[in-house]
Amino acid sequence: MLTAAFSAAAVGISSPSGELTLNVDVDAQGRPFYSLDYKGTQVITPSLLGLTSDETDYTRGFSIASVDTVTVDRSWEPVWGEYATVRDHFKELAVNLAENPIAAGEDPAQASKQPGRTMTVRFRLFDDGLGFRYEFPVQPRNNYLTVRGENTEFNFTGDHTLYCIPGDYDTDEYLFSETTFSGLPDALNNYGRHTEAQRTGGTTIQTPMLLKTADATPLYISLHEAALAGYPAMLLDVDTEAKGMKAHLVPDRLGVSAYLQLPFATPWRTVIVSDDARDILASQLVLNLNEPCAIEDTSWIKPMKFVGVWWEMFTGNQKTWAYSDDYLAKPGVTDYTTLTPNGRHPANTENVKKYIDFASKHGIEGVLVEGWNEGWEDWASYRKNRQFLFDKPYPDFDVDELREYAKSKGVKLIMHHETAANAADYERQLDRAFQFMKDNNYDAVKTGYVGAIIPRSEHHTSQWMVDHARHVIERAADYQIMIDSHEAPRPTGLCRTYPNWLAQESARGGEFESMGGNPPSHTCILPFTRLKGGPMDYTPGLFETRMSYYNEGKTGQAGTTLARQLALYLTMPSPMQMACDLPENYERFPDAFQFIEDVPVDWSDSRYLEAEPNHYITVARRDKHSEDWYVGAITDDKARTALIDFSFLPKGEKFEATIYEDAPDADWKDNPQAYRIRTVKVDSKTKLKQPLAPGGGAAMRIVKK
Amino acid sequence: MLTAAFSAAAVGISSPSGELTLNVDVDAQGRPFYSLDYKGTQVITPSLLGLTSDETDYTRGFSIASVDTVTVDRSWEPVWGEYATVRDHFKELAVNLAENPIAAGEDPAQASKQPGRTMTVRFRLFDDGLGFRYEFPVQPRNNYLTVRGENTEFNFTGDHTLYCIPGDYDTDEYLFSETTFSGLPDALNNYGRHTEAQRTGGTTIQTPMLLKTADATPLYISLHEAALAGYPAMLLDVDTEAKGMKAHLVPDRLGVSAYLQLPFATPWRTVIVSDDARDILASQLVLNLNEPCAIEDTSWIKPMKFVGVWWEMFTGNQKTWAYSDDYLAKPGVTDYTTLTPNGRHPANTENVKKYIDFASKHGIEGVLVEGWNEGWEDWASYRKNRQFLFDKPYPDFDVDELREYAKSKGVKLIMHHETAANAADYERQLDRAFQFMKDNNYDAVKTGYVGAIIPRSEHHTSQWMVDHARHVIERAADYQIMIDSHEAPRPTGLCRTYPNWLAQESARGGEFESMGGNPPSHTCILPFTRLKGGPMDYTPGLFETRMSYYNEGKTGQAGTTLARQLALYLTMPSPMQMACDLPENYERFPDAFQFIEDVPVDWSDSRYLEAEPNHYITVARRDKHSEDWYVGAITDDKARTALIDFSFLPKGEKFEATIYEDAPDADWKDNPQAYRIRTVKVDSKTKLKQPLAPGGGAAMRIVKK
Repeated sequence: MLTAAFSAAAVGISSPSGELTLNVDVDAQGRPFYSLDYKGTQVITPSLLGLTSDETDYTRGFSIASVDTVTVDRSWEPVWGEYATVRDHFKELAVNLAENPIAAGEDPAQASKQPGRTMTVRFRLFDDGLGFRYEFPVQPRNNYLTVRGENTEFNFTGDHTLYCIPGDYDTDEYLFSETTFSGLPDALNNYGRHTEAQRTGGTTIQTPMLLKTADATPLYISLHEAALAGYPAMLLDVDTEAKGMKAHLVPDRLGVSAYLQLPFATPWRTVIVSDDARDILASQLVLNLNEPCAIEDTSWIKPMKFVGVWWEMFTGNQKTWAYSDDYLAKPGVTDYTTLTPNGRHPANTENVKKYIDFASKHGIEGVLVEGWNEGWEDWASYRKNRQFLFDKPYPDFDVDELREYAKSKGVKLIMHHETAANAADYERQLDRAFQFMKDNNYDAVKTGYVGAIIPRSEHHTSQWMVDHARHVIERAADYQIMIDSHEAPRPTGLCRTYPNWLAQESARGGEFESMGGNPPSHTCILPFTRLKGGPMDYTPGLFETRMSYYNEGKTGQAGTTLARQLALYLTMPSPMQMACDLPENYERFPDAFQFIEDVPVDWSDSRYLEAEPNHYITVARRDKHSEDWYVGAITDDKARTALIDFSFLPKGEKFEATIYEDAPDADWKDNPQAYRIRTVKVDSKTKLKQPLAPGGGAAMRIVKK
Repeated sequence: MLTAAFSAAAVGISSPSGELTLNVDVDAQGRPFYSLDYKGTQVITPSLLGLTSDETDYTRGFSIASVDTVTVDRSWEPVWGEYATVRDHFKELAVNLAENPIAAGEDPAQASKQPGRTMTVRFRLFDDGLGFRYEFPVQPRNNYLTVRGENTEFNFTGDHTLYCIPGDYDTDEYLFSETTFSGLPDALNNYGRHTEAQRTGGTTIQTPMLLKTADATPLYISLHEAALAGYPAMLLDVDTEAKGMKAHLVPDRLGVSAYLQLPFATPWRTVIVSDDARDILASQLVLNLNEPCAIEDTSWIKPMKFVGVWWEMFTGNQKTWAYSDDYLAKPGVTDYTTLTPNGRHPANTENVKKYIDFASKHGIEGVLVEGWNEGWEDWASYRKNRQFLFDKPYPDFDVDELREYAKSKGVKLIMHHETAANAADYERQLDRAFQFMKDNNYDAVKTGYVGAIIPRSEHHTSQWMVDHARHVIERAADYQIMIDSHEAPRPTGLCRTYPNWLAQESARGGEFESMGGNPPSHTCILPFTRLKGGPMDYTPGLFETRMSYYNEGKTGQAGTTLARQLALYLTMPSPMQMACDLPENYERFPDAFQFIEDVPVDWSDSRYLEAEPNHYITVARRDKHSEDWYVGAITDDKARTALIDFSFLPKGEKFEATIYEDAPDADWKDNPQAYRIRTVKVDSKTKLKQPLAPGGGAAMRIVKK
């Protein structure tokens, strides 16, 4: 880690408000470095910059040749999201670095690997944080880089609290640790090895991650990246002694992180910082650093809620994605011409019709069906060359009949493309798979990449797979298809550029309620971390949380009350939002389900009212298509009273709030389904004390009266 | 290498004629092995069989549980080829191997890795050789294999002569060595390192290869494989001391050769053997071991001759595939929006029209155009994610105008898809590329894979690329597109199953006449080796052989007389046969070009009249669509008199032969263009002494009079 002081030649800028200050310099070896201050306090101490490649060293031997600064204040209107309009207001500093002249007596071979090389580090300093990236213009000699690593550092001032998950090239489906630099090695040791995933060695973590200082008025610092394209995802190697972090680019299995042709600009490295945790949640910095929408006609992109044939297979009631159990007798072998039905396959025509009926009755736009196509018996993708065909339904799934039935009920079926991580084969089939969707009236697809990646040179988040994701989203746009991707590279705000990328998983989602459970704190940290990249298909709406309900032999329980599940529609916003539970469970609680029917998935405004990572979040949002407001509040495993200040309501106007709340005796563990629904009059002057049960939450619909 | 004797329990069969005898047994360790005799002489001494995988050892611990034998005599009609009908006549021996019972006192863990495992070795013994493959039925436990190697041996009786090229995972574009087991290490050391190819270590060679014994009546033995699919290509590790060879499966870059799901059958290992070299050339054994045609309607598959914008770029006259030279100023960088034409780009509308005119005038069906699409300036595919778009013509290539012009002239343009070895990206584009072809009236495409393969886990001939090739050929069939593939895995007779796979390169072709040259012996060994897998796009028809003719500064000369180039249309048969030279060179020798106009590319019968590897070949073929016969004869760098026995002609009928021959003073080096054309009367009793110049040849058209 760097120990350098800024020289007289250092350059710097302040954010528009003046609260953030950036300084940039090169040290005696010509190594560029930067620091970041917030309200006069150091956030990031001098930290190195640069990139190493087989061909050229872009970490040292530089001088600052020139700088360009500009202030930008503009706004843009997302196709969907938390705000109707997003302000993009920053001061930019482009530091143009050039080869140092070779000093007298210096060995030219040592001084530089590529005379004439130049690199620009472009910084954008917002009032809520910093973004910077490396830009490599055309070089006089070599314009190809075989990138082995990135030198970017984030050095901190003390033993901050860290909220993070283990570094992994293949998955981010972990619970978050709340630890410190000092405690990180132990925290990482506590993680089990995720199946088929490749954990990095050492003390490596993933972004998006959050830090919190130990100050009396703590600072909250979010680290991530924006606009990840043509480059591998970034992990962070943590120096627990020096309290610093350094970029760790995901390599391919040959050890190369990126193959670049210049000119090239890397993704943005992002630092959101505030002394108010709510600002971290409200920040649109990552989206602002992405390119504008690349799709001209976006009229076909439609946010939606959906139910699906999905939870049935998680609940331990023996339902299966697979149509047959033949494979149990002959491991690894399935004769698809002579399948014996196992009778526990929910993706069948009759059952799907029930979901369509339910969706139609309750105004839910979509029905996802998992397990509709051949291949689930025979799961060993990495040792096969093809597992799934995306136009090969099981014999009990009648594509034609369901297409017509869904049409007649005004419901859209949602396609499922589980690739078993054979991304190469998915590309082979992609055009035909999308054409099959259009032919059968599907407009959206949930993609999945469970397993080890083919091409076998790749990890889930290596450069080729990042390119794969963009290829799929672009080709989908050609067919006017919306995507909800699971096990894809974690989001970095690309949904601004490709708004047909409605949602992603890329974190430990609701499905884990049946596989060990998610503690209440989990959804109190995801909005500070994972959601900074983009919406998550978390699959809220679980009304029946005890696994023993589904199957006596199954243990475990979701870390939530019923009312909290409603609040998640506000605290985990997504334009493609599931109501994950079984229709019959919703029919047991029709008054509570009314909230899911009512809640929008697209917003014109959002106000974070209360927030503390891992502990609580309270947010108010205004429906994009009406004047209605909605509030969601959640807490961790301790009871809490949310303080809801309704000053976000237009002054002088009267509203009625329908409140879906935990009953007084509710508790996620012992009494999760105890909820109440009440109605109160509210206006902009109302301040409401809203009790939340342990692991509980509250959801409100606020309508003008 | 194995030293074992056959036991009383050995099993065996003889070929239908009785000339070939096969024996199979297991040794004391339960290792299966085989031997092959020809006319009472050992051809292959006891040689091990089997396959190793991470999961299960299929090389030892077996007994012969049962055997099945059957005699088959059938025939089939290829869509195109050397014969109208091919006889498929063999005796089959299926040796069903099963787990040995565990002996008393034996450690079960040592005895076997997978109790209950079974494997069948299926042998087909023809009168001209042997084919055998491994078949893995469904196993009781594990049905996935991670294959690291194959145990198949081919052990020989002495220090035979070997005709072979170096083992290489990525290319087969080498001249052949004629050496011995003892001489092989030195012979391999003489090869330079092929650009971007990956030579194996040690004394490894490739198939198809040929051996010749040192006996007074020598045996000729051809080794190759048939029906390579779902498996990597086979190289051969040579034990120069023991005079044996062992299969060496091409691995991926992670070191794994094959990922298999059972049931699975490997490709056939093939041994063609005879004491008459002509039988090696005539053998249809490799095709017989392939599956029947998989394409129902083959009416659109049309053998053809073609000319092309191609040789212009090889001749050293500075013509380029690239449209622009901008990249020379900025290595690795091309701005395709502002290309400056270099004026030396033959793939332009005007020039292509000249080729269309020439083809139309001379009844040549196709015109290939290379360099028509963007990307050639910027050749560094391995460090890029996309190089070529297959619907992006250069500005001087007017797709619409040429489509209509070719149509009006009754000529088909042939597409060129150079992928720069980015097979993954080719698959991304494949549907669109083929649709673009159909939209523009192209029915055939020459594909190319120059460079290091992407996916970066792969080699040109590793399992994934073998699968890629089949994917492309199958998808092409869907679009009724014919393929001529270059730098693809070497052919193994799959053109029987997919007759739209008209031709392949997969050897050192005519293009090398401008890059070091091909000695006359080269085309005297290719039919014994490379052509046993299928037709080669060798690109014969070179009339102007001196490179200095094209460019004073360029040296080098093709190892051929002009007359020999005509003979190659017979000795190197292909249903997609180029006339490779420039139209203006053909116009200098219109009487000789008449033969290229006349010669067919599809045959109803073929008779190999004389043959000795590396030295000479004389062959007669009957046109599939008439009663005309054609003869081609070539020699090495020494003059020779071919003895042509016309007894293949129908008895009692009179023919006239137009003979295109070397002039008496012709010589490939000093007087290559000295040829004569004469006419002689022939019938089935004629025996003609036909002189051939050093490096020369003769071609005859024989028409009933």
